[in-house]
Amino acid sequence: MDELKLNWFSELNPLWAGQCMSLSVEEVLFHERSKYQDVLVFKSKTYGNVLVLDGVIQCTERDEFSYQEMAAHLPLFSHPNPQNVLVIGGGDGGVIREILKHPSVESVTQCEIDQVVIDVCRKFLPSMSKSMDDSRVTQYIGDGLAFMRDNRAKYDVIITDSSDPQGPAECLFEKPYYELMRSALKDGGIICAQGECMWLHLKLICKMKEFCESLFPSVSYGYCTIPTYPSGQIGFMLCGLSKDTNFKEPCRVLSESEYASMGLKYYNPEIHKAAFVLPQFAKLALQTNFVEQNHFDLTQEEDE
Amino acid sequence: MDELKLNWFSELNPLWAGQCMSLSVEEVLFHERSKYQDVLVFKSKTYGNVLVLDGVIQCTERDEFSYQEMAAHLPLFSHPNPQNVLVIGGGDGGVIREILKHPSVESVTQCEIDQVVIDVCRKFLPSMSKSMDDSRVTQYIGDGLAFMRDNRAKYDVIITDSSDPQGPAECLFEKPYYELMRSALKDGGIICAQGECMWLHLKLICKMKEFCESLFPSVSYGYCTIPTYPSGQIGFMLCGLSKDTNFKEPCRVLSESEYASMGLKYYNPEIHKAAFVLPQFAKLALQTNFVEQNHFDLTQEEDE
Repeated sequence: MDELKLNWFSELNPLWAGQCMSLSVEEVLFHERSKYQDVLVFKSKTYGNVLVLDGVIQCTERDEFSYQEMAAHLPLFSHPNPQNVLVIGGGDGGVIREILKHPSVESVTQCEIDQVVIDVCRKFLPSMSKSMDDSRVTQYIGDGLAFMRDNRAKYDVIITDSSDPQGPAECLFEKPYYELMRSALKDGGIICAQGECMWLHLKLICKMKEFCESLFPSVSYGYCTIPTYPSGQIGFMLCGLSKDTNFKEPCRVLSESEYASMGLKYYNPEIHKAAFVLPQFAKLALQTNFVEQNHFDLTQEEDE
Repeated sequence: MDELKLNWFSELNPLWAGQCMSLSVEEVLFHERSKYQDVLVFKSKTYGNVLVLDGVIQCTERDEFSYQEMAAHLPLFSHPNPQNVLVIGGGDGGVIREILKHPSVESVTQCEIDQVVIDVCRKFLPSMSKSMDDSRVTQYIGDGLAFMRDNRAKYDVIITDSSDPQGPAECLFEKPYYELMRSALKDGGIICAQGECMWLHLKLICKMKEFCESLFPSVSYGYCTIPTYPSGQIGFMLCGLSKDTNFKEPCRVLSESEYASMGLKYYNPEIHKAAFVLPQFAKLALQTNFVEQNHFDLTQEEDE
């Protein structure tokens, strides 16, 4: 431990007690407190530029593609004709970059609460944020819940690209937020929301899946691997207004050359299906929305 | 960073430069240098007891099951009738625990170079090491390469459960070692070897896959997720002497109750298939055994 001294960023957090990922820092590029959160951007030694909000890594230039591609393409390839897409959060612009790869998409509306996040991403994460200049994109700076109260039945797909359930994003993991998303969807609409990590937050995921199933006829939980998120993976909660939506198979499959022209580094139609195949401990828990007690070896989550 | 001080174990290593996983330590249970390596066992705050060799986490009581189950069941469920199994390394006994769940298995031979590793695992990791007391298990303390030179055409399955390619395990990632494993297999035999992480060591994996394909008619690369290995996952190189071996589908599928009686927490027949579905960047590299230059965002491996 003595070797790990200055010039490392360490992601200590009670949401993953007892474990900590660190990245070697070459240069701090920005560090200020916005109205909503602590905003840090640093140049890392081996992961490119890194965005950190309230002490938690949001994205690195080296591995962001897996999360951004899966957050966008799992829902968009599960919809037969996505035209109008809403993104809640996602101030880095990476999810928008992926959404715009679908020719059917006519409009992307983004609702991000923190202007400072957008500003620093425009400056320090251009490979993600340049997507926000596309003419199909409209940005609103403000609260996603208030925005959806004023915009009902407007979207084919809603993607929640949020931080973890503490601070400004806490309410995004609760039932009223999912009810609002439901009301903002058009017929046959689909949502995809950041769904935490099955190795760390299985109880939370079960609770979310349970209320999602009370709101939507189609609900599936998938995941992707990503080294710089806690425990190396992140999940997605997918819900559909139509009982015919089957997230586990893409409903549109393109030619090899069409996929190649999208410049995908993580997504392909096989990984779409594999994303919903869970290890046995998570499969069992999500079948019943219940995590067995005494599962020391699976989760250290506190009972609420 | 200042918060991350004493009482944390940190896994700094040039094999994953610029990143570092740390676990909170409650108590150091054992720390000595054996003839071969530095051997550390500590009780962690949230991952149970942890075995560390030469500064690298080998297993924790909380998440070991994913690696141990997949290292054993991917090859064993790819073989029609595995009877004689050889394990190189694997001093904790976890892989043996999983192998013994297959009723067809008559003998498990283990060749571990370091008696100290076996001794500390017997003392501090009983949920893994108690398998070594089974009457079907024979242990040899010594060099796996020498052992295989004296034992030709004897095994249905050989599993290499090794540490990383530095120190005593370095030669286990090279072609002569795979030639020796080939010579120790019976007709139709299968090997499964620790195959590093596609997010970190894609060039090494491509190089290994290339020489494996020169030695075996069937070669596949799969992976599992595991929070305490670098970047949250680990791969497996699977090779078969028969061209009919198809690792991507289990050749034996059991009933639900038979799987339940095996007490599996990670493996199931669906995850067997999904383990071989790779993200696009790894799929492309392993199709050609070549990693594109300038892939900053995928790997920081040095060219050799």
